[in-house]
Amino acid sequence: MKSSLIVSAVQQPCNDDEQSNLDFSITKIHEAAAAHADLVVLPELHLGPYFCQNEDFNHFELAHAIPGPTTDILSNIAKKLSIVIVSTIFEKRAPGLFHNTAVVFDKDGSIAGKYRKMHIPDDPGFYEKYYFTPGDLGFKPIETSIGKLGVLICWDQWFPEAARLMALAGAELLIYPTAIGWDNNDSKQEQQRQLDAWITIQRSHAVANGVPVIACNRIGFEQSPDSVAGINFWGNSFIAGPQGEIIKQANDSESSLLTCTLEKTRTDHIRQIWPFLRDRRIDAYNDLNKRFID
Amino acid sequence: MKSSLIVSAVQQPCNDDEQSNLDFSITKIHEAAAAHADLVVLPELHLGPYFCQNEDFNHFELAHAIPGPTTDILSNIAKKLSIVIVSTIFEKRAPGLFHNTAVVFDKDGSIAGKYRKMHIPDDPGFYEKYYFTPGDLGFKPIETSIGKLGVLICWDQWFPEAARLMALAGAELLIYPTAIGWDNNDSKQEQQRQLDAWITIQRSHAVANGVPVIACNRIGFEQSPDSVAGINFWGNSFIAGPQGEIIKQANDSESSLLTCTLEKTRTDHIRQIWPFLRDRRIDAYNDLNKRFID
Repeated sequence: MKSSLIVSAVQQPCNDDEQSNLDFSITKIHEAAAAHADLVVLPELHLGPYFCQNEDFNHFELAHAIPGPTTDILSNIAKKLSIVIVSTIFEKRAPGLFHNTAVVFDKDGSIAGKYRKMHIPDDPGFYEKYYFTPGDLGFKPIETSIGKLGVLICWDQWFPEAARLMALAGAELLIYPTAIGWDNNDSKQEQQRQLDAWITIQRSHAVANGVPVIACNRIGFEQSPDSVAGINFWGNSFIAGPQGEIIKQANDSESSLLTCTLEKTRTDHIRQIWPFLRDRRIDAYNDLNKRFID
Repeated sequence: MKSSLIVSAVQQPCNDDEQSNLDFSITKIHEAAAAHADLVVLPELHLGPYFCQNEDFNHFELAHAIPGPTTDILSNIAKKLSIVIVSTIFEKRAPGLFHNTAVVFDKDGSIAGKYRKMHIPDDPGFYEKYYFTPGDLGFKPIETSIGKLGVLICWDQWFPEAARLMALAGAELLIYPTAIGWDNNDSKQEQQRQLDAWITIQRSHAVANGVPVIACNRIGFEQSPDSVAGINFWGNSFIAGPQGEIIKQANDSESSLLTCTLEKTRTDHIRQIWPFLRDRRIDAYNDLNKRFID
């Protein structure tokens, strides 16, 4: 990793107009570049509304080829501004084969690599198993000019295995583009517990692995086509250091650009004072490959 | 698990006088029983000072046979009060073979099972690799009359693998007897980050696995034989629900008995709304058995 890295996370609302969403993202990428950021992260599927609130085959028309016209636009911006961009796109890989895919653009405009979401949720309002084939690229950090990026996506954030595998493969930073929010029918207490759990589990990946974490969420209420509930996306994007300490955090309702500097020496120091990787009992972890032990 | 479980955690100081430490623990066990607790957890190695601050072969004399006179005392109390007790004892297994071992006493006074600490730390002031042979019993929950207890010990708390393996093997509750504290030479900010990280990682095990967590620490300053530093044990014992929500928490300096009721229906509900076990990518976790992927 570059010894000193300036990183940015964009918190933004998304609507039905793809061009306006892309324009918003591009404006924020320019702001990040003006703040001398090396890296800017956009929320999950930032080009459109969160279309997984119902199952509708028409939504497959929202998918993009990678590479394709949209990634060409982002490639050009990455090159022009000399900034690494993490964008998550609904990927059309082949007819009937779609993924939820993060694309990393390097400072020279090339596609440094892709990550296809491995853990796919399916809950009322989040019907992702209908749209997204589980990723087949594994948990491999993406090599860039600024370091190895452990890019994961949303639901992956609840699985310590994913963060650990990225760290073991050399990830120097964990990145979670996200689209998560509240059901307004839940009580305020339940909403607060859910948000706390979401922050806690991601901070814990920083702690367990001694790496910084960038969590990047959308904001705004998006009506469901099928019910009155919809999703109230809770924002709270944050950047945490390698001890899980929160460095920057957005609120639950406003678009934001979070920017901070991460020092490689701090990660090295934390891994030295808390050498967890040294003490893992790899002789006793076989059952992690099991579904359950009855 | 019993449908409604009353659980207690004892936060206590420990000194050089084993009898007084044991008496203190026993007093608190009685208090827990008076509060109708089904289960009471004592801090790691609550019978003595934290002797791992230096390497001294005389300290091996502090070890106990299991079963032996000390476990007999705790067995009798468990039976008399009809309460499950989790005690952590420096175990003498054979000459030259010692473990850091949690013993679970069931309500009938029997030893329901043992857990030998699997992850062993070794840092300045915490020279545990000198004293404790790594556990060889694996991550197996202990079956009791009140449910399957996922007992782990201190340093284990930093390893998501341990919590996950306990949950996969059916643990209905995670329990962390602990002896952790501050170096008074560290800044207040560093001390706060360390405490936050310790709370965060354990709450995250509740979140990731949908199980309550009991973390039980000691308090008080214990001088090191070798330096002026010593360890200022930071207390902050807590009980969290299956969403990671803190239900009870002690402060950093006072002995305490934390008691609360855990409802099995709440664990079931949380696992239904967040079905993480359903979506684990067990086809892609093989590398968790590796030390690092170079």
